[in-house]
Amino acid sequence: MRRSRTTWPPRSPTATDLIPSRVVRRKRDGIELDAAELTGLLHGFQSGDVADYHMAAFLMAVHFRGLSPAELNVLVDVIIDSGARVEFGDAPGRRIDKHSTGGVGDKVSLVLAPLAAALGVQVPMMSGRGLGHSGGTVDKLESIPGLRLELSLEAFRRQVLDLGLALISQTREIAPLDGRLYALRDVTATVESVPLIASSIMSKKIAEGIDGLVLDVKVGNGAFLPAEEQALELARTMIAIGEAHGREVVALLTAMDRPLGRAVGNALEVVEAIEVLRGGGPADLREVTLALAAEMVQLGGVAGDRDGALALARAALDDGRALDVFRRVVEAQGGDPAVIDDPRRLPSAPVRLPATSERSGRVLAMDTRALGEAAVGLGAGRGAMGEAIDRRVGFVMAVAPGSVVEAGQPLAEVHAADPGSAERAVEALRSAIRIGTGDAEARPLVSHRVTRDGVEPWA
Amino acid sequence: MRRSRTTWPPRSPTATDLIPSRVVRRKRDGIELDAAELTGLLHGFQSGDVADYHMAAFLMAVHFRGLSPAELNVLVDVIIDSGARVEFGDAPGRRIDKHSTGGVGDKVSLVLAPLAAALGVQVPMMSGRGLGHSGGTVDKLESIPGLRLELSLEAFRRQVLDLGLALISQTREIAPLDGRLYALRDVTATVESVPLIASSIMSKKIAEGIDGLVLDVKVGNGAFLPAEEQALELARTMIAIGEAHGREVVALLTAMDRPLGRAVGNALEVVEAIEVLRGGGPADLREVTLALAAEMVQLGGVAGDRDGALALARAALDDGRALDVFRRVVEAQGGDPAVIDDPRRLPSAPVRLPATSERSGRVLAMDTRALGEAAVGLGAGRGAMGEAIDRRVGFVMAVAPGSVVEAGQPLAEVHAADPGSAERAVEALRSAIRIGTGDAEARPLVSHRVTRDGVEPWA
Repeated sequence: MRRSRTTWPPRSPTATDLIPSRVVRRKRDGIELDAAELTGLLHGFQSGDVADYHMAAFLMAVHFRGLSPAELNVLVDVIIDSGARVEFGDAPGRRIDKHSTGGVGDKVSLVLAPLAAALGVQVPMMSGRGLGHSGGTVDKLESIPGLRLELSLEAFRRQVLDLGLALISQTREIAPLDGRLYALRDVTATVESVPLIASSIMSKKIAEGIDGLVLDVKVGNGAFLPAEEQALELARTMIAIGEAHGREVVALLTAMDRPLGRAVGNALEVVEAIEVLRGGGPADLREVTLALAAEMVQLGGVAGDRDGALALARAALDDGRALDVFRRVVEAQGGDPAVIDDPRRLPSAPVRLPATSERSGRVLAMDTRALGEAAVGLGAGRGAMGEAIDRRVGFVMAVAPGSVVEAGQPLAEVHAADPGSAERAVEALRSAIRIGTGDAEARPLVSHRVTRDGVEPWA
Repeated sequence: MRRSRTTWPPRSPTATDLIPSRVVRRKRDGIELDAAELTGLLHGFQSGDVADYHMAAFLMAVHFRGLSPAELNVLVDVIIDSGARVEFGDAPGRRIDKHSTGGVGDKVSLVLAPLAAALGVQVPMMSGRGLGHSGGTVDKLESIPGLRLELSLEAFRRQVLDLGLALISQTREIAPLDGRLYALRDVTATVESVPLIASSIMSKKIAEGIDGLVLDVKVGNGAFLPAEEQALELARTMIAIGEAHGREVVALLTAMDRPLGRAVGNALEVVEAIEVLRGGGPADLREVTLALAAEMVQLGGVAGDRDGALALARAALDDGRALDVFRRVVEAQGGDPAVIDDPRRLPSAPVRLPATSERSGRVLAMDTRALGEAAVGLGAGRGAMGEAIDRRVGFVMAVAPGSVVEAGQPLAEVHAADPGSAERAVEALRSAIRIGTGDAEARPLVSHRVTRDGVEPWA
């Protein structure tokens, strides 16, 4: 069932609706815009009649005033209608995707997507590149030699139906208006707005043809929106957009007050993801992935409750079915499947240097954003869109909050392109890890589950 | 004494200061910008390194977050330094200007400037054109045949010293950055921001060489900032900027819940101003003008208290000295001085039509902004900068709040270019004037006086 679009298409905008400064003024003053006004503004931006400066002022007004549920749905609809939609029609099965708000060491998608597909969920996964301190799934996947992430939408659709999973990077065919808005938000300090984030994500996910979505909302000092309250607001907003568009959204709040797993950096994270797909890997990464997989298989109608879903997911990791799906998908998209069995074929960095602790004590907390920025400093990420990155570099953590270390013991191993950048990363890592006496601060790995029925503790 | 500029010039901006989105983000988040950051942003805007969209987002963030006193002073200084200053050096006398926040029928400057000059105050008066529902002094003055308002700054300076008064329109030589910022504010719904209004006015006034300023802050439904609280905030902000720059500013809050005087429209207002300069004219216009004149002559050191200042000002209207100054200034600037003695030489409209009342009763209130918009509809004002206007048209009110009218009696006489626009204006006037039974609403003509020592009732 899709929502009934009683307000869509909206009435034709009048000339007054289309005076951009009038629309900006009304939003500035906290007046709810009707569909014709907001549509007029957005269409004007697409056609060039509304200038970047009008839209910049509008976006800043939205930062302060927010968007009503009705405004949000109009924005989502206009963004969707700016591009193509992937149509699965009456094809059997349910299409469920996952989205993460991003963090440091977050390679969950690489494990989760083939795991859900192995359990019979169809996963049309469109991912982004990293920007700033957090990595992007596309950058990580491109560490695999030969892997193509620019499929046509038709090839994408067919592969989802054939293999249960296709992995592509964001394309200008889907929601091009979102790309233009994002580029402007990036330079006008209007990125961190819950309704703008929610509409950006949901419009692309709806256009890619999903029936449901599992949202991994990171919380903590390495998250995009660090505070739990903002994370909950984002979850609720996306759930409401999903409701209005007939898509079920479930969100888990997960910890980003330290890196997830141990590896940070593109090829290093692929290696770690393959370990989890083999039934091993760091316990925290496995646990978060299983929790999200349990939601995906429930949304996909494969299992009726969490315990059953978790049991199915654990088995598919442990018996190699998830790894098999990943191998088939990599092969179908031109990648070298041999890397799955021999990760040494992935690109590796020439310089390795341990970041040793300068003092003894307990790891009390980490500045997770600073850890992400240390990875960017090594070349693993980019400061501005379009910059080249080095897929070989990064680091592998040797400690987590609560670990006890002796002076001289490693906090992490740095993988670098040259000794200079390795030294700088060692310094940055040491500064970002607080060692002392007392209790460590650490959020629960999965803290909350949010659905249209409300918020509940996860554990 | 000018303020000691301990923070000026600021430290050299660093590369980080000059990332525009970072400065916008800090303002968005309510962090006080230091002088280097704000200067860097503004200089970047002047050079083109900071785009209109950066500045639009910044201005909207300022709308919501305001500017600290230190930020305001930096903004004022950078705007002043973007252009020339009129330097009076050690020339004898004190230069005092007046600024009005604008309204409907506000022709005070035409009377006040020659009146203050007649009393020995030097008045370097730079005025603007009208925009939207409120008129501009330059548009009114240009009704006088031959009058030139584009003097060079040197000719302006010399005439102030020679005749005590020069009248010019805003020039790109003074504070050109303000013009660029205003053009952007106009299209991004960031005009009505107290700190932006205050910095715009004060930078131009300081650059024109004043020692002091009398501010006429309009309050009521025809004012730019209708609410008394905002008017007081604007007054306080401008007084603080003046203090920081060694200029004394005194503000009066005056009524703009009805037109000031009876005439609305450029040539019609010149006729009415000349009536007041002859010792006649509407009582409300004369009273507001005298109140402001009393402040100017006190700031100019001509009189020590209000009663003495008022007596001097009344005498200079009644004995024709103020009119003489106006005649000399008009003549010095190329205008036809004969219009002063025979206002029939001013351009007049071909169509006159009474706007009769459709009902009997008391005038309870007026939608003053709608009255101003009716004048714009006749062609007396402009909806966008650069539009041509018709100096002949407008209307002369026959009633004020509290007047008792019979059905069929005139509310106003419309002066129009053609019968069609006259009819439309009649309709607009009727709609804007509320007639009924009960008490009329009307603000006191002059309600508050604001100085650096605080706010006091005026009466």
